[in-house]
Amino acid sequence: MSRGASASPAAAPMFTATIAVRWRDLDAFNHVNNSTYLTYLEEARLQWMQSMGNVFDPATTPVLAASELNYRRPIAWPAQLQVHLLCERLGNSSITIAHRIVDASEDGQLYCDGRVVMVWIDPQTGTSVPLPTNVRDAAGQSA
Amino acid sequence: MSRGASASPAAAPMFTATIAVRWRDLDAFNHVNNSTYLTYLEEARLQWMQSMGNVFDPATTPVLAASELNYRRPIAWPAQLQVHLLCERLGNSSITIAHRIVDASEDGQLYCDGRVVMVWIDPQTGTSVPLPTNVRDAAGQSA
Amino acid sequence: MSRGASASPAAAPMFTATIAVRWRDLDAFNHVNNSTYLTYLEEARLQWMQSMGNVFDPATTPVLAASELNYRRPIAWPAQLQVHLLCERLGNSSITIAHRIVDASEDGQLYCDGRVVMVWIDPQTGTSVPLPTNVRDAAGQSA
Amino acid sequence: MSRGASASPAAAPMFTATIAVRWRDLDAFNHVNNSTYLTYLEEARLQWMQSMGNVFDPATTPVLAASELNYRRPIAWPAQLQVHLLCERLGNSSITIAHRIVDASEDGQLYCDGRVVMVWIDPQTGTSVPLPTNVRDAAGQSA
Repeated sequence: MSRGASASPAAAPMFTATIAVRWRDLDAFNHVNNSTYLTYLEEARLQWMQSMGNVFDPATTPVLAASELNYRRPIAWPAQLQVHLLCERLGNSSITIAHRIVDASEDGQLYCDGRVVMVWIDPQTGTSVPLPTNVRDAAGQSA
Repeated sequence: MSRGASASPAAAPMFTATIAVRWRDLDAFNHVNNSTYLTYLEEARLQWMQSMGNVFDPATTPVLAASELNYRRPIAWPAQLQVHLLCERLGNSSITIAHRIVDASEDGQLYCDGRVVMVWIDPQTGTSVPLPTNVRDAAGQSA
Repeated sequence: MSRGASASPAAAPMFTATIAVRWRDLDAFNHVNNSTYLTYLEEARLQWMQSMGNVFDPATTPVLAASELNYRRPIAWPAQLQVHLLCERLGNSSITIAHRIVDASEDGQLYCDGRVVMVWIDPQTGTSVPLPTNVRDAAGQSA
Repeated sequence: MSRGASASPAAAPMFTATIAVRWRDLDAFNHVNNSTYLTYLEEARLQWMQSMGNVFDPATTPVLAASELNYRRPIAWPAQLQVHLLCERLGNSSITIAHRIVDASEDGQLYCDGRVVMVWIDPQTGTSVPLPTNVRDAAGQSA
């Protein structure tokens, strides 16, 4: 297996965010709504990018190309979550980020796993551009 | 390929919902946020279920097991969308619903495709139960 | 009190938006969440501004200074709403917009009334600026 | 006016919640959206009620009757907020809860103040009922 190409379950996360479930995240079925999991992932991803310094160069911007979520267990309120992000694949202008959303308490039960694909583009032209160096470095070190 | 087991791109949707983008669906990048696509799908799915009459039997409830979204183009505000739902696979207690989110205007450009897997469970025990007959019938006719 | 300074209950709305309740607008109490009413108002307000042509001059931007909502009845799903906006007070750099959120069906029952205050500012300095002419004209005609 | 009937600015909060701003709370103007302030208040209120033990007696449920918000400064991401809740008025079946949303950092700048009115009702009949004893006690002690 080549460097940076995949992440085994034992791989160390490149970033972990702690997120508090809000009561408004629940829907009329009294569990966290399925769309809110993507908000948790986004929050973790942006905290990760924030931690690298300025990655929002006006000439390159990340866009979400695809997402894949497996809902393993319903999430109740209140709860503290940990969102682990792992680099699953590092491309020229894209990165596949696997995730595990777990309970922040000791039992750490798994609520959701899956992945998203992010592509860096030139917002003027819409064409893909090479990953920013700091993103590549941060992702490569963890992979 | 057996009846009801898959949907070719040309397959007729089992349901189409028309949804107006709201300004609040935009995020700080000025496009509809990636999580909101799941809200559009959910709205279409619930309108579909609503159209069948009462499917919310207290003894059986649908839960989302997985979702897979391909983001094809950013969505701006204002816009009217059509969400087409197609039965891709009909299982004993689950259904795979493919979707196409397109612009409701004449050009009908594709914003997103993908699928979700829904499983019917007994909320008391958490174990899967056979699909309600009206769901099976509605999905089977379209597939 | 000068013309345009207040709106009696019988006053004609300066704008009416039709908005479909989404299932995700419900919260765990199975009614539309209290925060979502502000989203309905915002949607109506932005459709109103959109209808005037370009009011988003980079040199002047509207900000919400205050909101006041009376929740008259819970809103269920599905429902179609009408959001009526009325000019209650036209200041030099601000406008007080009263609202009535009613059911779009014939009975037209009232779900919410109240008002918001919007101020136009120079985003560079944060200081208030005169209302754009088209906003003043649109609001004045209805008041 | 009797004890517990109002809250001076210097009054001690009956509850303080710490809430992390999420990136998704921003809207296309790149500040926390005006509706999300109500979600922060709701989260603080429900954490407060949660801290009293079970107040969700099926025979009595709180509903929001009115809200009043003054937006003092825009909120950016990332930020940690403190939401202070104060009892402003204690009625027979209602409570007026004033709030101050401030930055959790040392400068503690004020983002929003205002109040909401909550009424306890019998969900079967929709008529108001006396405040639960634990709510009355918790509010009365702080007022």
